[in-house]
Amino acid sequence: MSKVGIIMGSKSDLPVMQDAIDILKGFDIAVEVDIVSAHRTPEKLFDYGKHAHTKGFSVIIAGAGGAAHLPGMIASLSPLPVIGVPIKSSNSIDGWDSILSILQMPGGVPVATVALNGAKNAGILAAQIIGSSDSSVLDKILTYKDGLKQMVIKSANDLK
Amino acid sequence: MSKVGIIMGSKSDLPVMQDAIDILKGFDIAVEVDIVSAHRTPEKLFDYGKHAHTKGFSVIIAGAGGAAHLPGMIASLSPLPVIGVPIKSSNSIDGWDSILSILQMPGGVPVATVALNGAKNAGILAAQIIGSSDSSVLDKILTYKDGLKQMVIKSANDLK
Amino acid sequence: MSKVGIIMGSKSDLPVMQDAIDILKGFDIAVEVDIVSAHRTPEKLFDYGKHAHTKGFSVIIAGAGGAAHLPGMIASLSPLPVIGVPIKSSNSIDGWDSILSILQMPGGVPVATVALNGAKNAGILAAQIIGSSDSSVLDKILTYKDGLKQMVIKSANDLK
Amino acid sequence: MSKVGIIMGSKSDLPVMQDAIDILKGFDIAVEVDIVSAHRTPEKLFDYGKHAHTKGFSVIIAGAGGAAHLPGMIASLSPLPVIGVPIKSSNSIDGWDSILSILQMPGGVPVATVALNGAKNAGILAAQIIGSSDSSVLDKILTYKDGLKQMVIKSANDLK
Amino acid sequence: MSKVGIIMGSKSDLPVMQDAIDILKGFDIAVEVDIVSAHRTPEKLFDYGKHAHTKGFSVIIAGAGGAAHLPGMIASLSPLPVIGVPIKSSNSIDGWDSILSILQMPGGVPVATVALNGAKNAGILAAQIIGSSDSSVLDKILTYKDGLKQMVIKSANDLK
Amino acid sequence: MSKVGIIMGSKSDLPVMQDAIDILKGFDIAVEVDIVSAHRTPEKLFDYGKHAHTKGFSVIIAGAGGAAHLPGMIASLSPLPVIGVPIKSSNSIDGWDSILSILQMPGGVPVATVALNGAKNAGILAAQIIGSSDSSVLDKILTYKDGLKQMVIKSANDLK
Amino acid sequence: MSKVGIIMGSKSDLPVMQDAIDILKGFDIAVEVDIVSAHRTPEKLFDYGKHAHTKGFSVIIAGAGGAAHLPGMIASLSPLPVIGVPIKSSNSIDGWDSILSILQMPGGVPVATVALNGAKNAGILAAQIIGSSDSSVLDKILTYKDGLKQMVIKSANDLK
Amino acid sequence: MSKVGIIMGSKSDLPVMQDAIDILKGFDIAVEVDIVSAHRTPEKLFDYGKHAHTKGFSVIIAGAGGAAHLPGMIASLSPLPVIGVPIKSSNSIDGWDSILSILQMPGGVPVATVALNGAKNAGILAAQIIGSSDSSVLDKILTYKDGLKQMVIKSANDLK
Repeated sequence: MSKVGIIMGSKSDLPVMQDAIDILKGFDIAVEVDIVSAHRTPEKLFDYGKHAHTKGFSVIIAGAGGAAHLPGMIASLSPLPVIGVPIKSSNSIDGWDSILSILQMPGGVPVATVALNGAKNAGILAAQIIGSSDSSVLDKILTYKDGLKQMVIKSANDLK
Repeated sequence: MSKVGIIMGSKSDLPVMQDAIDILKGFDIAVEVDIVSAHRTPEKLFDYGKHAHTKGFSVIIAGAGGAAHLPGMIASLSPLPVIGVPIKSSNSIDGWDSILSILQMPGGVPVATVALNGAKNAGILAAQIIGSSDSSVLDKILTYKDGLKQMVIKSANDLK
Repeated sequence: MSKVGIIMGSKSDLPVMQDAIDILKGFDIAVEVDIVSAHRTPEKLFDYGKHAHTKGFSVIIAGAGGAAHLPGMIASLSPLPVIGVPIKSSNSIDGWDSILSILQMPGGVPVATVALNGAKNAGILAAQIIGSSDSSVLDKILTYKDGLKQMVIKSANDLK
Repeated sequence: MSKVGIIMGSKSDLPVMQDAIDILKGFDIAVEVDIVSAHRTPEKLFDYGKHAHTKGFSVIIAGAGGAAHLPGMIASLSPLPVIGVPIKSSNSIDGWDSILSILQMPGGVPVATVALNGAKNAGILAAQIIGSSDSSVLDKILTYKDGLKQMVIKSANDLK
Repeated sequence: MSKVGIIMGSKSDLPVMQDAIDILKGFDIAVEVDIVSAHRTPEKLFDYGKHAHTKGFSVIIAGAGGAAHLPGMIASLSPLPVIGVPIKSSNSIDGWDSILSILQMPGGVPVATVALNGAKNAGILAAQIIGSSDSSVLDKILTYKDGLKQMVIKSANDLK
Repeated sequence: MSKVGIIMGSKSDLPVMQDAIDILKGFDIAVEVDIVSAHRTPEKLFDYGKHAHTKGFSVIIAGAGGAAHLPGMIASLSPLPVIGVPIKSSNSIDGWDSILSILQMPGGVPVATVALNGAKNAGILAAQIIGSSDSSVLDKILTYKDGLKQMVIKSANDLK
Repeated sequence: MSKVGIIMGSKSDLPVMQDAIDILKGFDIAVEVDIVSAHRTPEKLFDYGKHAHTKGFSVIIAGAGGAAHLPGMIASLSPLPVIGVPIKSSNSIDGWDSILSILQMPGGVPVATVALNGAKNAGILAAQIIGSSDSSVLDKILTYKDGLKQMVIKSANDLK
Repeated sequence: MSKVGIIMGSKSDLPVMQDAIDILKGFDIAVEVDIVSAHRTPEKLFDYGKHAHTKGFSVIIAGAGGAAHLPGMIASLSPLPVIGVPIKSSNSIDGWDSILSILQMPGGVPVATVALNGAKNAGILAAQIIGSSDSSVLDKILTYKDGLKQMVIKSANDLK
């Protein structure tokens, strides 16, 4: 059974990252949440990245702000697909720092970057990755997308 | 057998996108390359996005420059994971336009964005997505990562 | 009789887009308002764009935030002039994302972009487009511009 | 018969602005080209803007670089729709200066801004504005858009 | 006797521009304040710029936000030194639009640009310009600069 | 007789700053050129700034690139009007560093900033400052501005 | 015994700079705090920079906002390592001005720049510089880093 | 005897980093150069960072481009002062990515950041750090700074 690892650099990132947890639970996909700081717990980072693929994880979602090294360092250590969530932390420069620190990875070590504070989309992307080889999850994605459509149609009707 | 769809908005994007084709072929993963323009062939875009998941594709890689709508529109239409490659085209504003047009997708419709002109990383990420449920591909990723390491060690030795 | 289509990606864009509705009503120009999401209702987008010019619309105003694909995709589908309003949504990167996603369209498919949150100007521009072939509307524009002038002159007098 | 005024701040802008001239000629739309500098010929600017709508122009296209005031000042003076082309001149700051000087017009005085160096799109937009009340021009736009599509389909076929 | 003209595009700019008025009054330099909108009162702009140097003005200070054309257009029309104050208005893009619209003037037509919302410095600069040929004003500048120094020394002493 | 001091941080800035020298010589205004580095000759900087107003200078033009401190430090030391020229040096970040280092001076110490590499405009501004109290120079400015106009009119005629 | 000089351009910078004072006191390292304004007290700046290395200082921390010249000018005058803290002051342009004014120093005169408002890190860096030749301070750094780790581990445990 | 570790993410960074090697050799300070890639040799990174302070290094200089994680990860692992050199690599976004990835470190883990491609200044800063406790090196810095001054004075004389 597929499992998604959700990690973040600090407890203060949890309000943003909760969206990833919630949407994955809505898809009945198991998540394991942890705090791993690239800069303050490098040993834990190293251990987490090295062994994630042997512990039943299919995808890792990593959120971090500022000079955000967590997603890229996990991608350095793990063969799994890593989704990076740039977080607009206090003293961030409008989020540019976390976006560029996560997005601009060198050739050989990708991070699948989503929008600033886009933890919800990180969760959906993780589900899509699992769904690409699991048709029951793919069906849930199709249903989810249909739900998005119905909400827009309803709000369009409300407008009239 | 998994297959990756690689699409781009214009033939002029091929020199950048070729890196994705090459790296996936190196992993023995099937690719199908096509030109689909969000702005000039919207019907083809629509058809491609609607049916990709029923035609054996596991992942779609979409590259585009400027106001780059191709990756996001495919993500709108398909339940598959979509990887977006921002391309620094002529008259682009240093690539900012394609990066932000691809990265900043609204909640509900993620695009897995890689670095500017990062088609190679898009290919590796596609392989990692396939590898997350296919251990033979996962092994190839591990071997690839080991190769990266050996190259750095060799160049460090050359330096001394 | 000319009619302006005003669409937006989400109901949350209405407070910004209301300025376009109000100014056009002030010019006695008919408007039709709808919610069309490029990313959540692609079929409706497609249908809207393909048929707008056969349904009596002269101009389309499309507002969207973040990776704003609605104006460009309507411009892809319709031969009508399309005015794009970049909206500074929450989690936007200071509005740069919506500006660049709308402005930087590739050769062949223009979007007439106005200022960030500039829905009022989008409405005036739509009126000017209609006025370019309808002298009664052109006269209203001249009167409107004179009104702007009088307000400035009055506030200059108040200052003294 | 509709006529488009194409003006630019300096003869050095002509290589960029030529694209607008060419595409409009391709649509059999009359153009009148002139050099009007907001900063060096303010009287001519004033005269041009004040009288354009009485001299048979339907639309004005204005291109300028750096602190680009020409499009906005014409829009201040004329009731006609004004299309602004930001030009990436030498000593420009990557084009940001001309984009923001043209795009960010205050409420009341819109400029229909196109992409950096996007004179071709300015020409198409002018044609679309004329086409919004002239079905023969609208038909030409439809034909033009179909031509764009055929070129993409051909290049996609060439790829295979 | 020297006189400084202080103009702004809108009454809403007055809270920022008041700093220029106050500092000049502190130097006993005459000021004349007016509202002149490049975009809404182009005739007044034209008249103001053309005749300022014949009406006893030595320097003009012009403040404006967004696509700020007022300082540059006055500089186009007047042979006097023009000081531009970029104003961070609502819907401004962090002030970048007004800064670049004022600063990046083409060769031949300078605007002496000060910091974002820097009306106080605009006033001091106007005094310095007058002081460059009037030693009594130069002396006041020297006294003012000494006052700045004393305030810093006092606050350094307070700290200890 | 008025005299303009032109200083720059390095000999490599001379090709840019030469424009200021040339235009001032064209106005028959005396210039004195020197190299003063804020970071490498702080004593000379100090001496220059402290005494410029007692040595017959009316205006100082200071050009510098990168973290450009020369204009602001001279403005700190001298009561004279200081014009700053941001220079786009090698390893500059597109000129943003020199622009912001010169423009964003704190309240109390203005620098009259011109466009990136805008040494020609710095020269004209210096002449305008002198002209604000010297009608023979003011007349030269009026003649110069007329010359700009004639050149545009000529190139407009050439176009036809 | 090593001593760290902490200076700032204005008393209003103290709330940010206090973090540097506090962390250094926590490491039992002597600090001397002063206000030195590059733009308002250039003589004090000069004196401070010229003599700091003869007064027992090992490192200087300088904080400033806007066109921040204090760190670079101290680095110009002193042979000691200078740490620069960019401060996001009011009317700053999102902090970009202070960052670039401090970071982009020319070859020959480095400033060790830390993050926007990063006074705490400036204090730690000063301690590390002292620790590089003082093993008792190095041990305190190691203990401090271990403390950071324990806090993350605790918050990770709290999460579970 | 003090020793400086100079590391970089890739051999392609050597032309930039050579400046740090050369300047330190000019100060007779021992350097040890190595290639350590955060993303391709994470084990080597870990080992290097953990043990540098026990192997005779006083300072570490780390250069990297794009999403530059090497300086920050070394700072995470080592108690020594770490100097970061942002490198403008190909496909970098004008260097913004490497600057922000290195500069914007979270509280607790500083990196002493120098200018884009500023390896020479990184070397000088390393020498200053050593010089802060070694008066013979401090004297060399004073001599070096005097040399900078003489060069400027000579080029100023040449100008005359």
